[in-house]
Amino acid sequence: MSKGELTRQTILEHAYTEASRVGLGGLSIGQLAGALELSKSGLFAHFQSKEVLQLQILEYAASRFVERVIRPTLQAPRGEARLRAALENWLEWPSMEGLGGCFFVAASAELDDHPGPLRDRLAELQRDWLDMLANITRTAITEQQFRADVDPEQFAHDMYGIMLVTHQYSRLLRDPMSYDRARRSFDALMSAARRTH
Amino acid sequence: MSKGELTRQTILEHAYTEASRVGLGGLSIGQLAGALELSKSGLFAHFQSKEVLQLQILEYAASRFVERVIRPTLQAPRGEARLRAALENWLEWPSMEGLGGCFFVAASAELDDHPGPLRDRLAELQRDWLDMLANITRTAITEQQFRADVDPEQFAHDMYGIMLVTHQYSRLLRDPMSYDRARRSFDALMSAARRTH
Repeated sequence: MSKGELTRQTILEHAYTEASRVGLGGLSIGQLAGALELSKSGLFAHFQSKEVLQLQILEYAASRFVERVIRPTLQAPRGEARLRAALENWLEWPSMEGLGGCFFVAASAELDDHPGPLRDRLAELQRDWLDMLANITRTAITEQQFRADVDPEQFAHDMYGIMLVTHQYSRLLRDPMSYDRARRSFDALMSAARRTH
Repeated sequence: MSKGELTRQTILEHAYTEASRVGLGGLSIGQLAGALELSKSGLFAHFQSKEVLQLQILEYAASRFVERVIRPTLQAPRGEARLRAALENWLEWPSMEGLGGCFFVAASAELDDHPGPLRDRLAELQRDWLDMLANITRTAITEQQFRADVDPEQFAHDMYGIMLVTHQYSRLLRDPMSYDRARRSFDALMSAARRTH
């Protein structure tokens, strides 16, 4: 890794942690530069504008998500076991990143009414994640773990609802039971999909 | 209503709409005063600080929620029908307020990692809402619409998950099916609670 690339990576890592605290919109180039002992122009040499930096942070968060959630999930056996791995990896990823909650849930609430490339890219990433959950569900159907009439998109929707409410219970309500509740909801969802008529 | 009270109410209504767009933290006293053709000191005569204004906006939002969601929900027949009314009223309340999404979901994501009285009050309001859903569920059990072993807190949790994922699908993903999906998830949740062993 060249010195320039190393500096760029250092900026990104720091900005990612900072954005998870103050939001992508709350980032201050001046403060970032100060914290990293760079000049503002030194920082702008790597990221031509705040918008470029925000987009790169989003891509960086996506790469972290691949490493912490997507990759280990795809190593689990297909179907049901992989769905459970998706939930467990998602539950653990904020603490593995040293963050208080899922970066993307926080970014969604911040960006959902701010049209532009940042919001578009975030929506695309969310759709990819939901598509992945729906695809694993589809496999659980073809492998006859789930009933044939289970709707994979609805299953992904419901599973994402469990993730969002868990984020809310753990972050806002600081409920120590939030992960247990998530698992109970998930067990009920799985059991309903398995149930034979 | 006195002239002073009228001005105060006008400021609150405007600030509430503005906060639902830019967040409670994004409010600018200067811009608010400008938009309402008040001096900054005139505005501060009604709200002594930005923190006081933010807390009052939260209380105002809570009073809107009572009018749009709580009150009509309590007019529905007890138990199952009241749970369905809670969902339907919640789905409709943002558009009835002329807002793009639920004020409280947006505020939660903004405030969850900002300790202080604003966050505390928001968490309290959310707990009240979840308690109300759990209490209606409890009635559905005592009226034997739901099984005796249904966990009212878990039901409220799952129902709130449906609301949160609906907010996400309609706001970030602009999915035209989001309300239909919400109703399907809710039907499945109700049906699981009714199911006899």
